[in-house]
Amino acid sequence: MNKIYNPKRADWKDVLKRPTQTVADIERLVNGIFEEVRSNGDGTLKKYTEQFDKVVLENMLVSEAEIEAAKSLVSNDLKEAIKLAKSNIEVFHNAQKTDRVEVETAAGVTCWQEKRPIQKVGLYIPGGTAPLFSTILMLAVPATIAGCKEIVLCSPPDKEGKLNPAILYAANLCGVTKIVKVGGIQAIAGMTFGTETIPQVYKIFGPGNQYVTVAKQIATKYGVAIDMPAGPSELLVVADDSANAAFVASDLLSQAEHGVDSQVILVSTSKSMIDAVEKEVAQQLEELPRKEIAKQAIANSKLIYVENDQEALDLINEYGPEHYIVCVENEDFYIENTYNAGSVFIGNYTPESAGDYASGTNHTLPTNGYAKQYSGVNLDSFLKSMTFQKINEQGIQNIGKAIELMAEAEGLQAHKNAVTLRLNSLK
Amino acid sequence: MNKIYNPKRADWKDVLKRPTQTVADIERLVNGIFEEVRSNGDGTLKKYTEQFDKVVLENMLVSEAEIEAAKSLVSNDLKEAIKLAKSNIEVFHNAQKTDRVEVETAAGVTCWQEKRPIQKVGLYIPGGTAPLFSTILMLAVPATIAGCKEIVLCSPPDKEGKLNPAILYAANLCGVTKIVKVGGIQAIAGMTFGTETIPQVYKIFGPGNQYVTVAKQIATKYGVAIDMPAGPSELLVVADDSANAAFVASDLLSQAEHGVDSQVILVSTSKSMIDAVEKEVAQQLEELPRKEIAKQAIANSKLIYVENDQEALDLINEYGPEHYIVCVENEDFYIENTYNAGSVFIGNYTPESAGDYASGTNHTLPTNGYAKQYSGVNLDSFLKSMTFQKINEQGIQNIGKAIELMAEAEGLQAHKNAVTLRLNSLK
Repeated sequence: MNKIYNPKRADWKDVLKRPTQTVADIERLVNGIFEEVRSNGDGTLKKYTEQFDKVVLENMLVSEAEIEAAKSLVSNDLKEAIKLAKSNIEVFHNAQKTDRVEVETAAGVTCWQEKRPIQKVGLYIPGGTAPLFSTILMLAVPATIAGCKEIVLCSPPDKEGKLNPAILYAANLCGVTKIVKVGGIQAIAGMTFGTETIPQVYKIFGPGNQYVTVAKQIATKYGVAIDMPAGPSELLVVADDSANAAFVASDLLSQAEHGVDSQVILVSTSKSMIDAVEKEVAQQLEELPRKEIAKQAIANSKLIYVENDQEALDLINEYGPEHYIVCVENEDFYIENTYNAGSVFIGNYTPESAGDYASGTNHTLPTNGYAKQYSGVNLDSFLKSMTFQKINEQGIQNIGKAIELMAEAEGLQAHKNAVTLRLNSLK
Repeated sequence: MNKIYNPKRADWKDVLKRPTQTVADIERLVNGIFEEVRSNGDGTLKKYTEQFDKVVLENMLVSEAEIEAAKSLVSNDLKEAIKLAKSNIEVFHNAQKTDRVEVETAAGVTCWQEKRPIQKVGLYIPGGTAPLFSTILMLAVPATIAGCKEIVLCSPPDKEGKLNPAILYAANLCGVTKIVKVGGIQAIAGMTFGTETIPQVYKIFGPGNQYVTVAKQIATKYGVAIDMPAGPSELLVVADDSANAAFVASDLLSQAEHGVDSQVILVSTSKSMIDAVEKEVAQQLEELPRKEIAKQAIANSKLIYVENDQEALDLINEYGPEHYIVCVENEDFYIENTYNAGSVFIGNYTPESAGDYASGTNHTLPTNGYAKQYSGVNLDSFLKSMTFQKINEQGIQNIGKAIELMAEAEGLQAHKNAVTLRLNSLK
């Protein structure tokens, strides 16, 4: 691990630098597959499923029978855990509902704002060794609460042409309306254009490797919205002597096991805490099945000593961490003054993995410094706000003159005229 | 105008087609200027200001003296109009504030969501013949209410190196912290990377020509967020025999005068209303100073007759209009069941220009069908929501087991371990 003492502000940019990816080659591949899917639909999806996932599928749509079968393959313990997590996520996202905002801005001028669901959304769930059923909870639960009509889930099949039972179980439990066995670039293209099997959606959510990430970016060129730009997952812990070094080390490692490009940073005003955490990390690391991955991420990680809380805070706001654990005596100072972070975990008994799975908060969060301007996924991610206004005869007489003056000053005579005609009719 | 009777659903896509633009050439130009601004900062900004705006500027930053001078150049009537509009916009956007959402999802597990301001935002205001000071109100007022720390405004200077006094007056009135005389691609690049004069911002708002639009898209590649993707402005009116044909025509024309590529659509269940509006449009058009622009937009416009309200509604939801005027007897049916629209104007005395200027709603709205998945600009556009959680000893014991099971099922042992360590410490 890299220990850095009192970095100068001028060096913060370098100290906090994230790994960058080159995407030019991937873009070419993505553009090609997008064009093919647009012209050939399902045929192209199947072709690339054979090429990338090594399986020939007759039917990509998951059937009722497959869902039923999956239910019996998931252990009761895991089912109960998933239900508990779902219930907490529901409680927290239900609480995010907002009422219609209505005001009479001037007498006779009533304006209101209402949120309405995005009608069709697509969820992408990666395949691979770890079946990320927890991400289904994080996306499908708020989509269902928001009232999205069509909730399509795409996930790549294994070599037997199957999806992991936990994925099917969670998707069915959380209100997904259609599950399609297709992954990668071709899945994103399918949801962008629609095919015989996949409905075209208005917004695509979910994580993925760099191919999926670039595909989601390209999808926005075709009028589809995405949850947020993606980057490698990251965790910043701020800890002083009130923290537990073993707990902090376990949190850093739980981030590090995600991937070799995961970002792990400890900021501390205590040199002894930094040393203690370093030691704990080395010990705990040896026990992990994903040790090889975690080791590489840890090698790139940073332990940063700063002189005082203000310096630490400024550094943290400059970084804008996705996950942010606060284990310090003076926790209110950090909570109140951190402007740039995705999700904040406070105190010694709040591991990041609580928010990853079951506390109720969402785990789809802005990485790569995007916490400076993006929210994590929340109920509003599945809604859009529309405004309404109704003006009566009195109302147009109250604000009509101002509109006429402003429209004229902007050189827009027809805008003025739309008001003048109405005012004249009331004379 | 193109009259279309009872279009078949299969043809809706064609009937509702918007004009498309090719941007490949522009992208090349934008990428070049971005690279130059990134390396050379202010020097490049000045070079392109000389090239595109035909003026050599010593200092791009607007001074206090310039702002003071502008105040005396704006008529008192216009100042009063701007203040009235500002007050209504403030009332409506203030009402959009939300409280922190806090729930104890399980005993000992407290989760909350809080919105915090995006610290640095950039506003782009186009130059040209019409000084769009109204857009400053629409962007700077909510930015100020949200609590954004730095609100930078860029707008291209005229050949004397000046900005329109109404722009300076409105910017100063609404809390803009820095006004810079620079426009076009170079302004967007400046806000993306920061230069000696322009601070780097986290999110860029505001309209612009296609160069600015592409520049904003490219800016997102460098980690800057934008308000929304842009397209030509558009209006859809649904009207039956309860509407006033002259009013409807004036609204269609106020949209049509924006540009030759503006979109204007009338949907009606009344053939006589369609004919009456067509006649009124022809008459009113002759009186307009921007007649040549409006004429071309009107030539591409559509008057669509449909048999019944349900058919009209489905067509409207398929189109997803930016501006949407509802002048029908059965207005509740349309208001309740329209899912895809930016801003809705209801009744005979609610012209679109009311919302463009002074009623209080925002006029920065999703065009090009983006109302299906994007909100118009609102208070939340300047905030991001962060989540927080604090779990105590009891809380981790309540949800710890579920986290362990789920982490293990996803193959993430270190995630499990972060919980196990804590649970063991409490044994």
